[in-house]
Amino acid sequence: MANRIITISRQFGSGGRTIGRNVADKLGIKCYDQELIIKMAEQSGFCHDYIKEGSEYAVPGGWLANAFVARYANGMSNQDRLWIIQTNIIREIAQKESCVIVGRCADAILEKEEYADSLKVFIHANFEKRAERIVKVYGETDVPSEKRLKDKDKRRAAYYQFYTDRKWGDAAHYDVCLDSGTLGIDKCVDIISQLY
Amino acid sequence: MANRIITISRQFGSGGRTIGRNVADKLGIKCYDQELIIKMAEQSGFCHDYIKEGSEYAVPGGWLANAFVARYANGMSNQDRLWIIQTNIIREIAQKESCVIVGRCADAILEKEEYADSLKVFIHANFEKRAERIVKVYGETDVPSEKRLKDKDKRRAAYYQFYTDRKWGDAAHYDVCLDSGTLGIDKCVDIISQLY
Repeated sequence: MANRIITISRQFGSGGRTIGRNVADKLGIKCYDQELIIKMAEQSGFCHDYIKEGSEYAVPGGWLANAFVARYANGMSNQDRLWIIQTNIIREIAQKESCVIVGRCADAILEKEEYADSLKVFIHANFEKRAERIVKVYGETDVPSEKRLKDKDKRRAAYYQFYTDRKWGDAAHYDVCLDSGTLGIDKCVDIISQLY
Repeated sequence: MANRIITISRQFGSGGRTIGRNVADKLGIKCYDQELIIKMAEQSGFCHDYIKEGSEYAVPGGWLANAFVARYANGMSNQDRLWIIQTNIIREIAQKESCVIVGRCADAILEKEEYADSLKVFIHANFEKRAERIVKVYGETDVPSEKRLKDKDKRRAAYYQFYTDRKWGDAAHYDVCLDSGTLGIDKCVDIISQLY
């Protein structure tokens, strides 16, 4: 039988990563997030920080900046190579064990049922709640919360749309979408664990 | 204290109305749906069938067809009048009692917290599951399921967007979005009741 995977897509500052970890703890399964990045780094030979920047937040191909990106003989950019490496790793993990995977477009990558029996979750919250949370979790920076949120949202949405051909945050792509701002982190963890 | 209202927006054929009724039964509160239409009819003097057509499925203003719609001296079309009547009725209901309200843009109408403490739900399912369900629930018609679904989806989305200035089905507008096709009707009822 296929492993059971929970994929969590999340708006920046919505607490999606915390929810993913708590769900995994509750169910006694593993949560892949930074670990996944490190695993990617080892396999690809790319340095850790570059992968973190390039894997989910980078503005993808087709844009002006991309014209200056290093390309290989086969026409693939570093980002495209990272996408392929990431896709393979996520599929390997899904074939190996039941787990939670946060971000990384895992929902779209595991869509085909042959890879896994997955529960696709999207976590969001309104602007004010997320602004409050990023200051609490990541601390203040020189950049105002509003700009930090808008910037990350925009990059995640563009990355997701480019590589999956879907609209990020469209309810139709997920089994369950939850507002962590109105429901609270603990209730989100309860619902997801219960649906597993 | 404000009454507690569950608003259910739903794709046609997703079982949202059934879910709404079952949630209401489980919680011992009332579910407003066809009843609401009848109430509107009484108040406005419009005939029942006209209201059903005009209230949620009608293609709203700004379109060519609208140029031929009857208008009053104040520039309002029948549809605009219906929108105002509907808005007032939903607010009255929310002030009167805790309940479930299916459709009718109730989520957006009750947004301002002064009206109610509301849990905003969106129910969806993929095309195949909904096509299966509409044949089971409403029977076969001369019009193929695909056309029936696409037509209703388009009308509901256009109506919602016109009167609320929001994108229908965007996860960010709801506290919880559920895929009734993958989760099943009963699990949706459980989750919503539990969140109440």
